[in-house]
Amino acid sequence: MASLSYRDDSRQGAGGLSDDDDKPLPLDFTHHYSDTTKSRNASKIKAIYKFFQIPGILNIAGGLPNAQFFPYDTLEAQAAKPERWSPSSGSSNPSAPNHITIPHDDSTQKDLLQKIDLATALQYGMAQGYPPLLGWIRQFTRDHLHPGVPYKGGPEVVLTCGSTDGFAKALNLFVTPWRTTDPISSRPGLLCETYVYTNITNQATPLGVQMVPVKTDESGMAVSGPGGLEDVLANWDSSKGKRPHLMYTVTLGHNPTGILLSVERKKEIYAICSKYDVIIIEDEPYWYLQFPEASSLEAESRGLPPPPRSSPSTVTTPSSGFPFLDSLTPSFTPLDTDGRVVRLDTFSKTVAPGCRLGWITAQPALIERFERITEATTQQPSGFVQALISKLLISPPHPSPTPSFSLFSHRPPPNHQAGNRPAS
Amino acid sequence: MASLSYRDDSRQGAGGLSDDDDKPLPLDFTHHYSDTTKSRNASKIKAIYKFFQIPGILNIAGGLPNAQFFPYDTLEAQAAKPERWSPSSGSSNPSAPNHITIPHDDSTQKDLLQKIDLATALQYGMAQGYPPLLGWIRQFTRDHLHPGVPYKGGPEVVLTCGSTDGFAKALNLFVTPWRTTDPISSRPGLLCETYVYTNITNQATPLGVQMVPVKTDESGMAVSGPGGLEDVLANWDSSKGKRPHLMYTVTLGHNPTGILLSVERKKEIYAICSKYDVIIIEDEPYWYLQFPEASSLEAESRGLPPPPRSSPSTVTTPSSGFPFLDSLTPSFTPLDTDGRVVRLDTFSKTVAPGCRLGWITAQPALIERFERITEATTQQPSGFVQALISKLLISPPHPSPTPSFSLFSHRPPPNHQAGNRPAS
Repeated sequence: MASLSYRDDSRQGAGGLSDDDDKPLPLDFTHHYSDTTKSRNASKIKAIYKFFQIPGILNIAGGLPNAQFFPYDTLEAQAAKPERWSPSSGSSNPSAPNHITIPHDDSTQKDLLQKIDLATALQYGMAQGYPPLLGWIRQFTRDHLHPGVPYKGGPEVVLTCGSTDGFAKALNLFVTPWRTTDPISSRPGLLCETYVYTNITNQATPLGVQMVPVKTDESGMAVSGPGGLEDVLANWDSSKGKRPHLMYTVTLGHNPTGILLSVERKKEIYAICSKYDVIIIEDEPYWYLQFPEASSLEAESRGLPPPPRSSPSTVTTPSSGFPFLDSLTPSFTPLDTDGRVVRLDTFSKTVAPGCRLGWITAQPALIERFERITEATTQQPSGFVQALISKLLISPPHPSPTPSFSLFSHRPPPNHQAGNRPAS
Repeated sequence: MASLSYRDDSRQGAGGLSDDDDKPLPLDFTHHYSDTTKSRNASKIKAIYKFFQIPGILNIAGGLPNAQFFPYDTLEAQAAKPERWSPSSGSSNPSAPNHITIPHDDSTQKDLLQKIDLATALQYGMAQGYPPLLGWIRQFTRDHLHPGVPYKGGPEVVLTCGSTDGFAKALNLFVTPWRTTDPISSRPGLLCETYVYTNITNQATPLGVQMVPVKTDESGMAVSGPGGLEDVLANWDSSKGKRPHLMYTVTLGHNPTGILLSVERKKEIYAICSKYDVIIIEDEPYWYLQFPEASSLEAESRGLPPPPRSSPSTVTTPSSGFPFLDSLTPSFTPLDTDGRVVRLDTFSKTVAPGCRLGWITAQPALIERFERITEATTQQPSGFVQALISKLLISPPHPSPTPSFSLFSHRPPPNHQAGNRPAS
């Protein structure tokens, strides 16, 4: 069972930090839960699934079909090597693909976090996610993407069927649907930028949620001044609804304005959300599409002097272990002392939208509620996409990955050097 | 655009019947919709997606990534031939698989209902489903599975992420969550067999739904007598909740009792549901796992005389075109003059549970609401599973399918003969 305990074996230090003991516990947000969220219990069926992963155990009660009758013997793919899109590839044939094969039954692999086969991927599974993919994303999120989450124990993750599904589940978690016959003072509100992705209003308004746009300038949501966030919350008129307890924001490549929210603005927004007890739902589909070197390459190609190097982060966080990740503009997560940030990630813009695969990062108590919602709705993302993405991420068959892809490795080296492959 | 109009090109006759004009229209069930269902609008984004399928059209507004950057060049699989599990296979090597390949871009195929490639499957798509798979399932459902649906125009289908997702969407459609502060007389109820699949209670009760078990004997839900369906509804005590407007039932291989609901009982239950205006949610994961020949084969192997051949159906329905399908016990659908049946199907027990793929069959107005719910939650099943199942079903590379698999063809032959491959 040791290989199943990915929850506990790195719990003692988020991001491998040794100062976790000094961090505060995340706050309790049960007062923000919807009525349905409060009354959800764990699936009794899913509770026994974990035991089916023990080799040789009988599965009489779970309704699991015999995997020998799955009509696929393998799943395979021709998958791009990362060098295909690298401008400085040293590979002789960077466009040639690798052939990925997922066997029916990989009985040689005893570590369930490494075992990628159809007998497990196409079987009923756990709501949190397929163990190899969940384990990889969890570690990548905790150690590399968000190593500086400032609450004790660090965040947990749960897989989603993409971020539309993730946001639907966040509404399910935090919104009791409001009816026109209810008192107006109980009507829930959703803070957002002046312009908002149209799907968000399509999802929220049928639940009776009032969209509450905040004045937005070229740096994102305004904090002070008329129509800014503090003004909206401090001077809330409860004859128009309940003071919002939820915010939806896209901080990088905001849809449809393209705005990048500055780090200073993020700090100010977080402080106000903390003051007024607002949950922040941070939806970042475009976050990985940052090209820090683009402006200097552009200057070079135009024969101009290089632009001043802007520091992407004024938040002090531990290094992710990788220069590319360190260069990215910070999420709300390194500011999240309260545990009030629910971050939505997706493979839609980094692999393909048709994956319908993503994950939610949040404090453990919220992730536990998301798991209960998942058991009662989608159960788990399709095993076809979970297995094929696992194989793409976890077993890179190329011996010498480029720096931007060396983040797809299991652990950072003790002393990181860009371009070297971390020991795994 | 002609190839996109799969909704209209066979609308004039469900199941190819010529008497559609004599059929009644399905009833209007908007009075059963939940508050959120009533206020859902169509996704403005999804409304423009259909135009992106026209070859060469520019996609500026939809946020669709360039398919050339999807990191998969092919998806492939070794897939079982149907002969693998046929006891009377004439194949020399029935266990050998076929190799399935889904190319990145099948530009030679102009018919979108036949075009299975990654450029379409891994792109954003339509909530109703991936056109080749949706088109195939729709025609299979209307012409072969349920050719005798007795309302004008016949049923429509929408794909789901499996039947747990399908039932979650049915609750979303028909249940306004009830709060303990609401009047007890408004509490929704869900009729079910005495014993019920545990996930159903896990899904329904957090919405405040009262489970209303009906007395059940070896033939399924009892109709008359104390505790039977008529008794429960006719003598409903509104001090304990609202008279139920929803029924959940598994009529074949009921979980956990294994009960097979008889056709006569189905007729009686339908009549009572019609009288008391109850929506029937028929969940049939095991429906295809019927082996009509098993009892005679068993008798033969034991040297006993063959058992009397029971007629599987006493409902007069048009032939599905295939002896195996005709041999299956009838669904509620051939009885559904009102359009009150919502049937859930899944690939979980016929392909593999990890597919997380299924479909809902119901009257068009309900399917339209399910599409709106899908846009706001899962968007669509993963393109990985949709493409791989499409390829398995639509392009059987074996030249001579066995009778049980010849149902996986596009249209029945004008004069059906078992064992011959229908012209496609």
